[in-house]
Amino acid sequence: MTSHSSGTKGLNEELVREVVAAYARTDDARWNAIAESLIRHLHAFANEVQLTPSEWFAGIDFLTRTGKTCVGPRQEFILLSDALGLSSAVDNIHNAASPGATESAVTGPFYAPGSPAIEHGGSIALAGEGERVLITGSVRSVDGAPIAGAVLDIWHTAPNQLYAVQDSTQPEMNFRGRLRSRDDGAFAFTTLKPTFYPVPVDGPVGALLTLAGRHPMRPAHIHFTITAPGFRPLTTQMYTRGDPYIDSDAVFGVKPSLLVDYVPVSDAASNLRWTLDHEFVLDREDKA
Amino acid sequence: MTSHSSGTKGLNEELVREVVAAYARTDDARWNAIAESLIRHLHAFANEVQLTPSEWFAGIDFLTRTGKTCVGPRQEFILLSDALGLSSAVDNIHNAASPGATESAVTGPFYAPGSPAIEHGGSIALAGEGERVLITGSVRSVDGAPIAGAVLDIWHTAPNQLYAVQDSTQPEMNFRGRLRSRDDGAFAFTTLKPTFYPVPVDGPVGALLTLAGRHPMRPAHIHFTITAPGFRPLTTQMYTRGDPYIDSDAVFGVKPSLLVDYVPVSDAASNLRWTLDHEFVLDREDKA
Repeated sequence: MTSHSSGTKGLNEELVREVVAAYARTDDARWNAIAESLIRHLHAFANEVQLTPSEWFAGIDFLTRTGKTCVGPRQEFILLSDALGLSSAVDNIHNAASPGATESAVTGPFYAPGSPAIEHGGSIALAGEGERVLITGSVRSVDGAPIAGAVLDIWHTAPNQLYAVQDSTQPEMNFRGRLRSRDDGAFAFTTLKPTFYPVPVDGPVGALLTLAGRHPMRPAHIHFTITAPGFRPLTTQMYTRGDPYIDSDAVFGVKPSLLVDYVPVSDAASNLRWTLDHEFVLDREDKA
Repeated sequence: MTSHSSGTKGLNEELVREVVAAYARTDDARWNAIAESLIRHLHAFANEVQLTPSEWFAGIDFLTRTGKTCVGPRQEFILLSDALGLSSAVDNIHNAASPGATESAVTGPFYAPGSPAIEHGGSIALAGEGERVLITGSVRSVDGAPIAGAVLDIWHTAPNQLYAVQDSTQPEMNFRGRLRSRDDGAFAFTTLKPTFYPVPVDGPVGALLTLAGRHPMRPAHIHFTITAPGFRPLTTQMYTRGDPYIDSDAVFGVKPSLLVDYVPVSDAASNLRWTLDHEFVLDREDKA
């Protein structure tokens, strides 16, 4: 019960103490820590900006519409988290890499399990028109040793700017594949050079981006999840250096160490237009 | 683009600067202030508790289910705001009363416009079994002058712990009425003494309360919205002193100045069991 002692500030300071006491005094220390921090920051926000009832209601309405936009596989709250940089923050907290190890990036909403096994040098492009690229590289440990038998789960958008899981006109396994590194840690596959694309803009998050004067584009990238026994799983992305959206990713996923260079192929007779060579460096499991 | 300079803390400090720059640099100063504060507190929360991916997903899932529970008139996000004390905080910010004026309380989700006009001394109880109470009082200005013709819009739960708008078994206008103060500022009506009641517990907010070990009860109260030309509209509640839940209101709405005393009627022949006398004091409009 808040008393009428010292005006709005006093009322609301007493209120937040009451709310914290009501939620953050359970037997679960982790719950208490999360509840207390969340309540304090929520109330600090409202008090700091002196939130008005109509602004409060605009927020209620936005969150309600965001929840209602989560239909079937669409997850607008994850998109909101992505677009506010929260997903990247949580990824940074969880996946702090050892010096020399490849940095992580968010999984994003378009991963699907069950991608088909691809042979060394095989293609993950089943349909679509674009510029063919040969991607080679290796997987190694932070101590330099090659990692044999690492599994690389790979996915990216089709040239029409949609992932196969978003687009019933594509083959289900388009631009998706699962490779194993060879004894020397090497891997190789071909695909079509990925393109930038927009996040979905027909929901509340699209409206938020518009309100803030932001574009909805993500720079071109390829997703990888790499697993090998004895090593920490790595989920990361390779971003195309020079992409027009590389400095303004709608979801704040780009890190300088994740930029890669596509090298043009000069042989006019080749069916390849680009090559790309990249090394993934994994942390040992006991570094976790 | 966040660089890999100084570990997770450095990464996330750079990230929040980027996100603020992306959202809080528009031409709308108010938007910028709200966006910056919201982004800083959201990220500070995640960093302070070192939020894990599974905890982050539990939050995403909770918000999604809260949105999906908003069906028809049910507004689970308002209930969440109420249950976290945010609604009371916003009310305190907006409705800071002048010294001597009646304090406000939240409107809550059960107000409905269009309540019927009641004559001075009339009843707002159309159906239900309970203890009849005569409520009298007056409306005056902070300078002491009576306010004639103030409109009092009144609503409370039925003895079955439900508002008419929640309960199709009640007459639509049960425990709802609209009165006018007389020339001397006086008003009077009868009703059945209100009871404590639970907020809806079959949704995500109910689960949250259970997780925190909180009960869902609100102490007994009557809602009033009072309007008069030249005065700031007042939305408030009269709480029953001595209610078993008066110190643990599920939605943090109680303020000491809003407690009222029901006085037992000793005349055994009376159809009244209680009387209650209360004065409402309004701020002048120019104090807004």
